[in-house]
Amino acid sequence: MRELEKLFDRIIQRVNINLRELAFDVNPLVRQLIPTGQMTKFYAFYGITPHHPLNLVFKHSNLSGSYFLGRCRVTNSLLYKSDIRGDELKKSGDLFQYQEFNVPVDQDEEIRIDDCYLIKTLVHNFSHDPETLERFFIRDTVSTHYANIHGSPADGCYLGPFATVDLTTMRDCVIGAYAYVQAGEISHLKIEPGTVWVRNPDDFNFMYRYPLNQLNNYIYFTAGSQPQGIFMDFVEDRKEAFQRVFKVVNIETPVTVPANASLDRFAVIKPKTRIGDNVLVAQRAFLQNSTLGKGANAQENCYIINSKLAGNNVTAHGAKIIDADMGTHVFVGFNSFLRGRPDARLTIGKESIVMPHTIIDIRKPLTVKPGSLVWGMVGNAEELEANSMALKDFAKIHSRISRGHMLFEGSGTNFVNAFQERIHHILEANGAFYNGNLNRGHAQKNQNISFNTIQPYPKGDKEGMYPTIIIQP
Amino acid sequence: MRELEKLFDRIIQRVNINLRELAFDVNPLVRQLIPTGQMTKFYAFYGITPHHPLNLVFKHSNLSGSYFLGRCRVTNSLLYKSDIRGDELKKSGDLFQYQEFNVPVDQDEEIRIDDCYLIKTLVHNFSHDPETLERFFIRDTVSTHYANIHGSPADGCYLGPFATVDLTTMRDCVIGAYAYVQAGEISHLKIEPGTVWVRNPDDFNFMYRYPLNQLNNYIYFTAGSQPQGIFMDFVEDRKEAFQRVFKVVNIETPVTVPANASLDRFAVIKPKTRIGDNVLVAQRAFLQNSTLGKGANAQENCYIINSKLAGNNVTAHGAKIIDADMGTHVFVGFNSFLRGRPDARLTIGKESIVMPHTIIDIRKPLTVKPGSLVWGMVGNAEELEANSMALKDFAKIHSRISRGHMLFEGSGTNFVNAFQERIHHILEANGAFYNGNLNRGHAQKNQNISFNTIQPYPKGDKEGMYPTIIIQP
Repeated sequence: MRELEKLFDRIIQRVNINLRELAFDVNPLVRQLIPTGQMTKFYAFYGITPHHPLNLVFKHSNLSGSYFLGRCRVTNSLLYKSDIRGDELKKSGDLFQYQEFNVPVDQDEEIRIDDCYLIKTLVHNFSHDPETLERFFIRDTVSTHYANIHGSPADGCYLGPFATVDLTTMRDCVIGAYAYVQAGEISHLKIEPGTVWVRNPDDFNFMYRYPLNQLNNYIYFTAGSQPQGIFMDFVEDRKEAFQRVFKVVNIETPVTVPANASLDRFAVIKPKTRIGDNVLVAQRAFLQNSTLGKGANAQENCYIINSKLAGNNVTAHGAKIIDADMGTHVFVGFNSFLRGRPDARLTIGKESIVMPHTIIDIRKPLTVKPGSLVWGMVGNAEELEANSMALKDFAKIHSRISRGHMLFEGSGTNFVNAFQERIHHILEANGAFYNGNLNRGHAQKNQNISFNTIQPYPKGDKEGMYPTIIIQP
Repeated sequence: MRELEKLFDRIIQRVNINLRELAFDVNPLVRQLIPTGQMTKFYAFYGITPHHPLNLVFKHSNLSGSYFLGRCRVTNSLLYKSDIRGDELKKSGDLFQYQEFNVPVDQDEEIRIDDCYLIKTLVHNFSHDPETLERFFIRDTVSTHYANIHGSPADGCYLGPFATVDLTTMRDCVIGAYAYVQAGEISHLKIEPGTVWVRNPDDFNFMYRYPLNQLNNYIYFTAGSQPQGIFMDFVEDRKEAFQRVFKVVNIETPVTVPANASLDRFAVIKPKTRIGDNVLVAQRAFLQNSTLGKGANAQENCYIINSKLAGNNVTAHGAKIIDADMGTHVFVGFNSFLRGRPDARLTIGKESIVMPHTIIDIRKPLTVKPGSLVWGMVGNAEELEANSMALKDFAKIHSRISRGHMLFEGSGTNFVNAFQERIHHILEANGAFYNGNLNRGHAQKNQNISFNTIQPYPKGDKEGMYPTIIIQP
C-alpha cells in the first residue's frame, strides 16, 4: 500500500499549502477518517449510455466505491464512495449565457479532478464559471462525508461533512460542516459550520447561521473522530440495505417503473413504494413506503420514507423526507432534513421552497402553508413562524429584513425569481415535463445505463491503486 | 444493434475470403448460433494482478461474457463467453529457444485478436511460432463452442465445436468438430471432425480418426442448428450453477483453500470438494464431490465430478472426469471426456497419459494400467486394449505402427519424451512444485486477482458494442 499512503500524504500537503493563510490543517481531521483497508474493499463503477459523451480517464488514483458518469478525468486522487455525475456537462457547440455575454463552448466539458481526497462527496452539474466553461475543475481539495460540490469549480479547499458549495467558484476556502454557499466566486474565506449563504453580487444576499449548540446534535465533526450526530446515525442505520444492492451484478426492480421514469439500480427501494410517470431516482437514493408522484425526483443520498410527494417535487442531493406529505412543486434543497413522526406528520403546502440545508424536526404535526419559503432550524410551529415567509411577501422586500438568525439584503423579487427559475430548470433537466415526445430529461435518458466495475491492484506496492484506465466512445 | 450486425457481416466475409480455396462457407454455420440479444446480456471481465503485465485495449468489439488476463488487444471482433488468458505470455528480455536459435524477446508479448468471432473459445499459452514471438495473433477467424486456441497463432481459420489447435500456426484452415491438431505450421488444410493429429516434422507423426458414427453421439454440428450431442448436453445440464457464480460481485469460497493453492471465483464448487496444496482451479471449472491432491489442477471448462485426483494431475482445458480415480501424475489432455459410472468406476494408473480428445465412456468398471498411453474412443476393456499402449513400449517404436484407427510413424521415444517434458512444464507453470519459496506458478500468483467488469452500450445504433477501453499499468 506504499503508493496509496504516499498519495494521501501528497494530497494533504497540497491542500494545506493552499490553506496556509487560513492556518487550517486538514491532516488531523482526515488522516484516520477512512482506514486504508477500506479503500481496497469496494469496486468503483461507471455508466455507459448512448446519451452522455463517454470519455473517462483514471490515473494514479484510488476510486473505491465511487461512481462516474459522463466525461471525467481523475488523476492523483482518492475518491471514496463519491459520485461524479457528468450528465449535465456542456457540449461542444452549446452557447453559455453569462450576463450580457453569449459564450460558445469549444469542446465537450470535462470534470477534472486532480490531487483531491473526496469522501462520500457528490459532484454534479457543470461549471458555472464563465472563465472555465470546458473544464469543471476540482483540485487540491479535501471534502468529507456527504458534501456536495455542485456546479462549483474548486481549488485548494476543504469541505466539512454535509457542506454544499453550489454554483460558486472557490479558491483556498474552508467550508464548515453543514454550511451552504451559493455566492458566485469566493476566495480565502473560512465559512463557519451551519452557515447558509446565498448571494448574487449587487442583487441580493441571504444569510442564516445555525445556532451551533443545536446544529451539533445533528452534525458535529472534530479532529480524531468520525463525524457524529443524528445525520450520521440516520444514514448508518440504513447502510446495510445499500450493501445488498452493491453485492449483486444485476438486480431486479422491486417495483413497477413506468416506461418514462427511471430508477437507478444502485438505489434502495423498500416495500410499498410507488413510482409515478417521469420520476427520476438516482443511485444511492433510499425510498421506503412512499409515493413519488408524476415528475418528482430523488437525487443521490436522498431518503424518502413514509412520505407522499404529490408531483413535480425536487428533492435535491442529500435531502431527507420522513413522515411527510409534500404538495406539488415543493422544492427541498440540498441536505435538508425534514422529519415528521408517525403520529406527527409534516405537511408542506404546494409550491413551497425549502431552502438548502433546512432542518425541520418535529414532535407535533406541523403544516407549512402553500407558497412558503422555509429556512434554518424548525422544531415547532413557533420556530416555523420565525423561519419562514410567504414567497409573495418575500418578493416584496426591497432593501433588508432580519428575522432571528436570518438576514436578507437586496431584491426579494430577484431572489424568489432566481429560485423559481432554477427549480423549473431542474424539473426540466430531470425530465419531469416529458410528454412522450418532447422534453426528455434524465428520467428518460438514464433508463438504459450499463455499469462497468473497476477494482484496484489487490497486492503489492500498488495495492489499492487503480491501473490507468481510459474509456472512449 | 446496426453496428453489431455490420460487424458480424464484416467478419464472416473476411473469413470466407480466406477460406475460398477450401470452398468453405462459415455463414450458414454461425449466423444463427448466438442471437444478437444474447450478445448484449452478459458483462465481460478482466483480471488485475501484480504478477501479469497489464495492458488491455478493446476497440469496436462485443465481448459478452468473456474473460481477459494479461496483455491483450481486441479489435473489430465478437467474443462470446470466451477466455483470453494471457498469463503465460513471453516478457521483454526473455530468450525463446527454437531448435538451434536463441531468440531474444523484444517486448512483452501481446494476444492480438482482430476481425474474429470466437464463441466460448479458450485462448491460452503463448505464440510458439519463432516468426512471431511478440504477437500471438488471431485474425479473420471464427471458432465455435469450447474450441481451444492454445499457443497457436491463427489467420483466416474456422474451428468447429470442441476443436483444439495446439502449438500450431495455422493459415486458411478448417478444423472440424473435436479435431485436435498439434503440427507446427499448417496452411490451407481441412481437418475432418474427430481427427487427432500430433506431428513434429521429421520426427514423428501420430494420427487417429474417430469413427464418425460414434463421434456424432458426442458432438455433431451442422448448419442451421446448435452443436448437439452428449458433450453439449453435459455442459448445458450444469449451466445454472455458473449463472449463480456470475451474478454476484463477491463470492464466498465454499471450501477451505490452502494458502498456496488458488481457486478462481468464477469456478463452480459443489459440496464435498477438497482442494490440496498447490492446486490450481481456473475460471469456468466445475468441481463436485471430488478431491484434488497436491499439485493437481483443473483448467477452464473442466468438470471433475465424484472423482479423486491423487496429485500432480494435469486436467487440460475442457477435460471432464466423472466417477474416476486418477493416480499421481496422470495427464488428461484437452477436451477429453472420461466418464465412469457410480457402479462402474474408471481407474487410471499413475503416470499415464490420456491423449487430448480421448473419450472413455464405460458401463463396467475399467482400469488403465499405470504408465499407459490412451487415445481415441474407449467404451470397454476390449477397446482400451486397442487404443492404448504402455508408454515404455510406445517409446520403443522406431518406424511405424498401426492399431485400429491409429497410425504412428517416427520416433516413439521422442513422442513420449515430448509429452512428458510438456507435462512437467505445465505442472511447473501451474505451481504444482511450489515449496513455500521456489517454483511459484499460477496456483500461487492467481490468488489475488481483482476482477473488473465491462458492459456494452445498452441502446441505440451502438447497442451491444463496447466503448473503446484502454487499461494500462
